[in-house]
Order: sequence, then structure tokens, then C-alpha cells
Amino acid sequence: MTAREIFEGIRKKDRLALSKGVTLVESLRDEDRSQALELIGLCHREAMQSRRIAISGSPGVGKSTFIESFGLSFVGKGESVAVLAIDPTSSISKGSILGDKTRMEELSRSELAFIRPSPNREEAGGLGISSYEISILCEAAGYDYILIETVGVGQSEIAARYLCDLFILILQPGAGDELQSIKRGIVEIADLFVVNKYDGSFREQAEKTRLRFLAEATRDEVSTREVILYSSIRHYGLEAVATFIEGFYEGKNLRDLTKRRDAYWLSKKLEKGIVELCLKRHRQEIDRIISMIEQGVDDPFPLVRDFLTDLDTASNR
Amino acid sequence: MTAREIFEGIRKKDRLALSKGVTLVESLRDEDRSQALELIGLCHREAMQSRRIAISGSPGVGKSTFIESFGLSFVGKGESVAVLAIDPTSSISKGSILGDKTRMEELSRSELAFIRPSPNREEAGGLGISSYEISILCEAAGYDYILIETVGVGQSEIAARYLCDLFILILQPGAGDELQSIKRGIVEIADLFVVNKYDGSFREQAEKTRLRFLAEATRDEVSTREVILYSSIRHYGLEAVATFIEGFYEGKNLRDLTKRRDAYWLSKKLEKGIVELCLKRHRQEIDRIISMIEQGVDDPFPLVRDFLTDLDTASNR
Repeated sequence: MTAREIFEGIRKKDRLALSKGVTLVESLRDEDRSQALELIGLCHREAMQSRRIAISGSPGVGKSTFIESFGLSFVGKGESVAVLAIDPTSSISKGSILGDKTRMEELSRSELAFIRPSPNREEAGGLGISSYEISILCEAAGYDYILIETVGVGQSEIAARYLCDLFILILQPGAGDELQSIKRGIVEIADLFVVNKYDGSFREQAEKTRLRFLAEATRDEVSTREVILYSSIRHYGLEAVATFIEGFYEGKNLRDLTKRRDAYWLSKKLEKGIVELCLKRHRQEIDRIISMIEQGVDDPFPLVRDFLTDLDTASNR
Repeated sequence: MTAREIFEGIRKKDRLALSKGVTLVESLRDEDRSQALELIGLCHREAMQSRRIAISGSPGVGKSTFIESFGLSFVGKGESVAVLAIDPTSSISKGSILGDKTRMEELSRSELAFIRPSPNREEAGGLGISSYEISILCEAAGYDYILIETVGVGQSEIAARYLCDLFILILQPGAGDELQSIKRGIVEIADLFVVNKYDGSFREQAEKTRLRFLAEATRDEVSTREVILYSSIRHYGLEAVATFIEGFYEGKNLRDLTKRRDAYWLSKKLEKGIVELCLKRHRQEIDRIISMIEQGVDDPFPLVRDFLTDLDTASNR
């Protein structure tokens, strides 16, 4: 299939074509890159109408069940949902963590849903330029919502922040000071806190956690952040989340959000491309210096410093 | 103090001078860089005799108490120990996670110990080129052991692997499949597994965890990895760990380990320097393209692609 054919399929909301497109964009093979770029370009020209929501939280906090119940509520209203589950991979074994566990089973059966685990091997935290490119394909397919699930490990959250309009942090009832301090950066970028598992024996703890995070949410006076109690089992809190989202998008221009996002990710892409070219250009010299160091030099630091000084001088000429 | 004066202090094992040196190396100020490089160069010329051990594990697993009891056992034998505790910082708040918690109190009172939390703000996972440079300062100060504590979050473990000779992974009794799968990459690079908290009500669980990881340790036939039960409270397992370490270093040439380490980190340093220069050289063009994208272009991807193609062509001429 050519990029044009895949694009036509995507425009018709053909999920198989979308899957093929995602695979093409994720491909690390050089020969796929120009096709991938053509496809992304075609998709990007389409109007951007998707609402993009990041869903983050520590492992075990119930992100998948939240996304499933949350996604089903959209689907129930006739709205379509694309879910990109970012799957960080071990840098050694290249093995997938989520593995082939079946997740979001009910949601995945809906015609209105597209679920794609994205084993992005290039980027730290699993979320990177190709996630951005994949999200453009989903936009072109006309999904009303793009939900991006990230594992709460810091770096990927910053990327998710730039990939999405809205950032939801899922919390465990009883999540205490330890979590709070470790996830400080994530707490700060979240637009909405959802305390999950507000059911059964967790209810009281969930309420306590809500109060704790309410203090976070209202710390700066201009903040419009909220803390919502949620239970996937009892279908509790769904409406509050939906209302928050509506309020969030009110008066916001999706086109402006798109431009800001493009600027961020394309500057990343540009920088990455420049870096690759530069390193390629200097590869031989790097290898020569490193092999000298491997053979053993008393003080290898000046070798590195002098090379960089010369390079700087040359580029300023 | 000049780099030379700091160096003289370090050679005399003056911990205040070592602290000053570390601060100098960690400094992000341009004007400190040449002094820092001079200091590192002076230190690197000294014989490298330290044994470098990475200690990793999930938060709460007891890394600090392990290091304290382990460090005290060296100090008890008259051996000196430098502890570098890597402190990942939030990329948003720039706040320190470990904060000002007093840790390793008893060890820190020993004349033979130097403990330094290293809030490295530059690198993902907290462990990077400056950690390597700091370790060189500790070597020049003649520490018998350099213990590098890292929080088990993936990326920093790879860096720790290249910073140290030996990698110890501390485990929680009852650490199950979830931990195993998440830490797959870390499990693979560990030379030694230590199941901590082998005391009180945890004993049975610790034994089960030992058996589970024993399978990991002996998976490949050539492996010389081990699983040791440990209790800081009962001083149990210390000797087994010490014996493992002796065995590990037997027949190994520290000079060779140093050369390999230098080659890795200096190639990182070289690449980082080249990348910074390249981005600086092209900053204006990057900014011009990004501002075009911010103003809104239907298909911004060709802008990026064409720029990179031109750059590639120009560099091949």
C-alpha cells in the first residue's frame, strides 16, 4: 500500500489502514521514512479536531480500567476514541513490559474505538516524536478523543504534556507523601487529579487522598485544577470528569493548541535530525579519539577538549 | 581555590577539598568549566585503584541501610569508602527528592567515609557525565571503594553499569513477578542480587524471593551471578557479599576496567560537545523554521525535511 492509499483508508476511518499507517510511522527502516513522511504530511493537512488527553499514573493505579470505563462512556454517546498506550521497553532486552496481556477488552470491541499499544523503542520513557506523528494519523481519522496512556516515570510525562491538551493524573487511594514527593513534577503539570478505586474498603482512604491533593490543586490561586473521586466499578465520577473536560475546552481554539504542539515537536525533530547529521559527519574523528583512549592515555580529557575547541573555532570562521 | 590547590587537598584526602572539587565539577557555570577540566585531568593522571560498586533497587528497598552497614564493614577493616548517592530531580520543580533527610548517619561520622548526594540536574535518571567526573576525583583521593547508589528507574542503571565494575541489585522480600518484569533490564545487568530485610517476619518471604532470583542468576550457563540473603539489623550476609566481591575482582586488572570506562564516558562527552556546537551553529535557522510553524503552516513537515536534506547535501560536498 502506498502512503496515499493508506491515507485514503484512514480518512474513511478504516482501522486496518490506520494500523498500517502507525506501523509505517513506527518503522525504523530507512526505506519506510519517505513514505511515512508523505503520509504524516497528508494527514496533517486535514483539520485538527481531536481532543487530546494524557492519562498518567504509577503502575497498578488502574489507568487501563479508568481508560476503559472513560472510553466506553464516550463511545456510548457516539463519540469515537483512539487510545495510544505507550509501552516503555527495556533498553537491554528490548522486551515489552505490557506484553500481550489483553487490556481494555470491552472498549476494544467497539467500532468507535481504536486501541494501539505503541512500543516506541527510540525514546526515553517510550513517548517521543513518533508518538506525535501517530497522533496526527489518529486526528486525520477523525477521532473525537485521543487518549494517551503513559507510565508515570517522569520524562514521558513531560512529553505527554506537550502531546496533549489536558493531563489527568490517576491516584491510588492512600497515596501518601512518598508518592507525592517522587511525582512532584507530574503533580505540577496535572490539570486534573482522579482518585481511583473509590469503592469498597478504599472509600475512606480515597476521601483522605482527595483532601490531600486538593491542597495541591489549589496551591496557586489561578489554578483551575480539580480532584475527582472515581470508581470504574460503581461508574462513579464519570460525569464529573466529563464536566471538567467540557469546561477545560470551553473557549479554547484547537487550531492554536495544534500550532503550539507542532512547534514543540517539530523543533525536537529538527534538532534530532541536525544532531544525527553532525554525529555522522564527525563519526570518524570520534572513533579515532575513542580508540586512542581505549589504548590508554594518561590524561584523555585534553583530547576531547581540544577537539571541541578546534571544532568551535572552525565553525565560527 | 585554584584547581591545583583543590587537587593537592584531594590528594591529602581532605574531605573539604573533595567536596569543593565535586561542587566545581557539578557547576553549570561556563566560567567554572576550565577549572573543572583542569582538576579532572590532574586527578585522572593518578593511579586508579578504587573498586567501584553500583547499588541499585526500587525506592523503599533499603539501599541506604544496606550501604550504611556494608560501608561500615569496610571502614571497620580500615578501608575507605566514598558514597555517591544519585538524586534524581524533578525536571519541573528542580527540587531534590532525597531532600535534607539525614541518611547513613553512622557511616557519615567515620573519618574513612565520604558521602555525597549528587543532585545532577543535567541528565536523565540523575547519573551522567559529571557523575563519572566526580568518581575520578574520589579515585584521586584514594578511596578503596566507591559506592554509587542509584534509584531503580532504568536509564540511570545503564549509566551506573558503565560507571562501576560491579552492579548489585537490592531486592525486597516478596518481590514478585511485577517487579521482575518491570526491572527486566536491570535484572539482566546485575552481577549480584541481595535480598534485603532477611529478618523478623520477612524471613520466609526472603527465602522464596531468593529461589526465584536464583533461577534468573543461573539462566545463562556462564553466569557467575549469585543471590545473597541479607539483614542490616542482624548483620547477616555481609561476609557472603564481601566474599563475592573478592571473587569478582580476582584476576581483574583495574587499569583495563578504567580504560573501558574512559572510552565510554569520553565518547559521551565528545558527542555531547559536538551536539551542543551543532545546535548552536544552526540555532538561528531552527528558530526561523519554528517561528514559521508557530504562525501556522498547512504542512510543516516538508520544511523540516527540506532543511535536513539541504544540510546533509552541504556536509557531503
